[in-house]
Amino acid sequence: MLATGVFDLLHLGHLRFLEESKRKGGPRSKLVVIVARDKTVFRRKGKSPVIPEDQRRELVAALRVVDRALLGREEIDLLGILKETRPDIVCVGYDQDEIRSGVTRLIRKEGLRIRVVRIRRFGPIGFNSSSNLKARVVKALSSF
Amino acid sequence: MLATGVFDLLHLGHLRFLEESKRKGGPRSKLVVIVARDKTVFRRKGKSPVIPEDQRRELVAALRVVDRALLGREEIDLLGILKETRPDIVCVGYDQDEIRSGVTRLIRKEGLRIRVVRIRRFGPIGFNSSSNLKARVVKALSSF
Repeated sequence: MLATGVFDLLHLGHLRFLEESKRKGGPRSKLVVIVARDKTVFRRKGKSPVIPEDQRRELVAALRVVDRALLGREEIDLLGILKETRPDIVCVGYDQDEIRSGVTRLIRKEGLRIRVVRIRRFGPIGFNSSSNLKARVVKALSSF
Repeated sequence: MLATGVFDLLHLGHLRFLEESKRKGGPRSKLVVIVARDKTVFRRKGKSPVIPEDQRRELVAALRVVDRALLGREEIDLLGILKETRPDIVCVGYDQDEIRSGVTRLIRKEGLRIRVVRIRRFGPIGFNSSSNLKARVVKALSSF
């Protein structure tokens, strides 16, 4: 099982996504998580994560449900990552459509035997979004 | 082993504190973590955590290093918690002097055989503080 993400300000939505990803592979599956590099996030979103990549990776690796957490490659070498981690399934989050189409395209092109599974969103909208969480931090702080 | 805290916006400083707490008890020790209730935090700090208590508890419980995570009692029934979890050691963080003196006083008064161990701060100042983390979220968001 392979899942990817930024995991900035780790929250319950991240945990649910990882738990569900693990579940898709059955009880004995191994869950490998690729944590996006700061530079990759900056290039894609125009801003860096609040938490540096090493700390994001280590916190994800500390979760019981995660067997291994790696930093992504700065140039997003998807094929390299797929060949290195050899997953049966790649899990993508409800908000990872770009990653989903990239991975799907690559798998077809290379003729790899990997399934891509979309994990649904958990809880109400806003419950498990890092952006929303950041907005809530600002709101909570500004009210005092 | 018993450790307590708020664990709002879980970060690497929290993880280090819990890992070090577990280490103090040896490899086969069990680490029980009491996660402070929203109301308790509000009463002590004048503001509520950003993340609700159930979510804070569940995320702490999902860490490999944690054997069990419980919500505190709203009225901070320390003696009840000590009798229920029966720890050999209570670990307190570098910024938990109030909890340390409270627990130490109670242990002496009740004649309990429990050690209180202070866990040092990890990394540079500000590295592992939730307040600092919140300030960084605000700074990161205001710069765009």
